[in-house]
Amino acid sequence: MRERTIEFFWDSASPYTYLAATQIETLAARHGAAVVWKPFLLGKAFEATGNRPPATIPAKGKYLFQDLQLWARYYGVPLRFPSVFPVASLTSLRIACALPDADVGVWARAVMTAYWTRDQDIGQPEVLKNVIGELGWDADALLARAQDPAVKDKLRANTDEAIARGVFGAPTFFIGHHMFWGNDRFVLMEAVLAGRLG
Amino acid sequence: MRERTIEFFWDSASPYTYLAATQIETLAARHGAAVVWKPFLLGKAFEATGNRPPATIPAKGKYLFQDLQLWARYYGVPLRFPSVFPVASLTSLRIACALPDADVGVWARAVMTAYWTRDQDIGQPEVLKNVIGELGWDADALLARAQDPAVKDKLRANTDEAIARGVFGAPTFFIGHHMFWGNDRFVLMEAVLAGRLG
Repeated sequence: MRERTIEFFWDSASPYTYLAATQIETLAARHGAAVVWKPFLLGKAFEATGNRPPATIPAKGKYLFQDLQLWARYYGVPLRFPSVFPVASLTSLRIACALPDADVGVWARAVMTAYWTRDQDIGQPEVLKNVIGELGWDADALLARAQDPAVKDKLRANTDEAIARGVFGAPTFFIGHHMFWGNDRFVLMEAVLAGRLG
Repeated sequence: MRERTIEFFWDSASPYTYLAATQIETLAARHGAAVVWKPFLLGKAFEATGNRPPATIPAKGKYLFQDLQLWARYYGVPLRFPSVFPVASLTSLRIACALPDADVGVWARAVMTAYWTRDQDIGQPEVLKNVIGELGWDADALLARAQDPAVKDKLRANTDEAIARGVFGAPTFFIGHHMFWGNDRFVLMEAVLAGRLG
């Protein structure tokens, strides 16, 4: 039986995660698959694994900056590198954990669009309120719920799960027993979903 | 005018470079482009940029090991992780610098096939002699030529050029002003070659 679920570990602070988020639902739909959006704290995965943000190597940072723009043009999506980077993504991820499952992808895309295309500092509660409001949701209620201990625990649990399953960067996807790191693994993910790679 | 040249910086010690080497001529041919095979010392690029081999992060190393196998199956090529790793690729790269331009790609593929599919330690002169012999070339003469100061200088110059142009890993490709790191950038390279990305 072919796998029909893509687990997507995302952190809104990651530019390649934004790019992946613009494409993943279309990719999944092509194969009749469902996306499970799983917010996690990328910084904790860096700490736990000893990995570091790629731009800490200047030559790599310079390349990745151009590479991101090329992927954005390839996908036909906007990308504007934010003036506040890295960003405090914690609250945006807690909000994701406070939402019903069906709304998590909607929120992920909205908050990453604000940060990665409109240069809005999503570490600021006022910015998050606006993004929530644009979705027609109750911003004050949702921001309050994002501080529930159970919601905080859920984000911690997602992060622990990611690290236990071998995640060291973002975006990371799982299809069955296969793990995929990066939007550049879409070709392999599509081959697995199409049954061409077991 | 569309770019019709792909510069390919390769070091036989790099597994993703082996994978790329199995595909690049076919990719180039699809777009009427030529591949210029440029041997360089990846280790020197790591030193110069502060980058490190990816497997120095254990979680990343574990993932990349599986990822390599998946790419090999996707491309339909053999891959057997060598028992001697990392390998001393210096002489194999000097040999490349001693060859006429038209033979460099032939040599690159032959020596990487020996190392990455037959577990042969290409740091050993006897192994290199066998690989050269299989190509029908004069092994003793070529190994002697590989020690010429001018040949050593050529490898040094290629390596310096790579670092000066921003290379920090392998494989790295250039098409016009675009740099691409990794076989996973083939989708972008094809888009550039097809004139869909300027």
